[in-house]
Amino acid sequence: MSLLVAMTVWHVEDWRARFQALLPELPIVTLDEPFDRRAVHYVASWKHPEGSLAGLPNLAAIFSLGAGVDHLFADSRLPAVPLARIVDPDLTFRMSEYVVLHCLMLLRQQRRYARQQDAGLWEDDRHQPAAREIRVGILGLGELGQDAARKLKVIGFDVAGWSRSPKTIPGLATFSGEEGLDQFLARTDILVCLLPLTPETRGMLNRAMFARLARDGRLPGGPALINAGRGGLQVEADILAALEAGELGSAVLDVFETEPLPSDSPLWRHPAVTVTPHNAAMSAPETIAAQVAQQIRRLEAGEPLQNLVDPARGY
Amino acid sequence: MSLLVAMTVWHVEDWRARFQALLPELPIVTLDEPFDRRAVHYVASWKHPEGSLAGLPNLAAIFSLGAGVDHLFADSRLPAVPLARIVDPDLTFRMSEYVVLHCLMLLRQQRRYARQQDAGLWEDDRHQPAAREIRVGILGLGELGQDAARKLKVIGFDVAGWSRSPKTIPGLATFSGEEGLDQFLARTDILVCLLPLTPETRGMLNRAMFARLARDGRLPGGPALINAGRGGLQVEADILAALEAGELGSAVLDVFETEPLPSDSPLWRHPAVTVTPHNAAMSAPETIAAQVAQQIRRLEAGEPLQNLVDPARGY
Repeated sequence: MSLLVAMTVWHVEDWRARFQALLPELPIVTLDEPFDRRAVHYVASWKHPEGSLAGLPNLAAIFSLGAGVDHLFADSRLPAVPLARIVDPDLTFRMSEYVVLHCLMLLRQQRRYARQQDAGLWEDDRHQPAAREIRVGILGLGELGQDAARKLKVIGFDVAGWSRSPKTIPGLATFSGEEGLDQFLARTDILVCLLPLTPETRGMLNRAMFARLARDGRLPGGPALINAGRGGLQVEADILAALEAGELGSAVLDVFETEPLPSDSPLWRHPAVTVTPHNAAMSAPETIAAQVAQQIRRLEAGEPLQNLVDPARGY
Repeated sequence: MSLLVAMTVWHVEDWRARFQALLPELPIVTLDEPFDRRAVHYVASWKHPEGSLAGLPNLAAIFSLGAGVDHLFADSRLPAVPLARIVDPDLTFRMSEYVVLHCLMLLRQQRRYARQQDAGLWEDDRHQPAAREIRVGILGLGELGQDAARKLKVIGFDVAGWSRSPKTIPGLATFSGEEGLDQFLARTDILVCLLPLTPETRGMLNRAMFARLARDGRLPGGPALINAGRGGLQVEADILAALEAGELGSAVLDVFETEPLPSDSPLWRHPAVTVTPHNAAMSAPETIAAQVAQQIRRLEAGEPLQNLVDPARGY
């Protein structure tokens, strides 16, 4: 019985060492070496190569090494075994740090003041709105969306949320489904996207959606988009066109269609775009490895898997 | 009976119009014109010229048009009448927006990522601390300090507060007096100053204080100062020297020894200094005028003055 660590982008030997320290009794194998495919009971994956998990006859579970699992479903030959994702309060809190930071930067026009500092210019906006005047709309009301909503409300923002299926959350105005989306967007000055990437949500952040945002808003510069979900949710050409047309006043992007963001992307240099290197919320590798190790111990003890992914929903 | 509007910096005619609209029965006079000094019962002041309020024999009260009243005590010939300041929840909330924004910018290294964006550089910090690892210390536990502390705690920061005299605030670690200051500073990664300016606090943010901040901190770059109180609290030469010596990693300054900040100040161009034009928290002029008008109506009705200033404390 062994654990296969299958990844691209990340350093596989670092992960092998982490798992070995936590599960000293379990052989850890990687795709970089020959290994007994029949011995593999568990896979820990981060963007594993397409098809690399096929032909593992005794596979019992696949663990995504992150909250997002779209990388698993990107593999058309993914084995039909239980899938589990990381649920990490620390990741949720970090995501809320990012969302609150960027909502406040937009509210308080921090990029304007940074430019003024560069120019040695002392000038304030006598019509600076307060947080209560700015309507934040959160797309996605899972653990991330709910935590961000709660914290934004404490700061004073006027917050609402949207989810595919109806949700009731104490103290939060919620909208759902296609029929609720229009009303939700029409009352949104800052659109915060925390949706998972699924076939239904791919490309959802497009020009048609931006055109439906509040046109009577009080956010300086016009409606803003913050995408800290997945790059595949957004159509970058549409973001640029909407900025050009004034349908969007600014965009804060942590994720991109291609990552790292290619050096020739106009997003890098656009004065109304803030680019961060997909670092809104990362779990510490130690936390992730510990959670996977605990799941393996649970399975070995006959207990059920936690944080299961629903393949039908895609998250 | 009349109200004298006495100010520098601000536009006196705008204020006259606001008060006239709210108190149509009351004559409003200004220093720019001849007026009957014996008729003046009330003064609304923002940085009135030194001595300009002397010789008003029937003066009943002076209203500061802001939360800060150090501008009143700067006048050695200030009449010995009751003084009242503005207490405005909106101002408190705006101050907390500023404090939370800049604590999050420091935590999440937003200036680093802005520089990286300018350079087209995709690179994250794998050792990014979480808010819970960063100790914020708030100097001043009045309404501003308490609101900021509460909101920073919700975001996840490890918050403590210091005040001159002991205060007990549920859920907040508090320190007081000179004897508590050492312990408070030694556990502070981000020092947030929301103190009033008094003879005791003038120049308090000096190099000796910066040297007492946490030396074992986890804030990238080292301890930080956020001053959103008054410029007179800080010694700007000491801030620059402490940045040079590494005793401070960064400084976020909304207030300055001289305002507007002179164009030859090295603070403008220092890469570790964030300059904002004293706009952390302003009350809307309409809110201020309404509060002063209400105070005058209370006095006319024989009710006591609210938000009284204690001349012995200076705030």
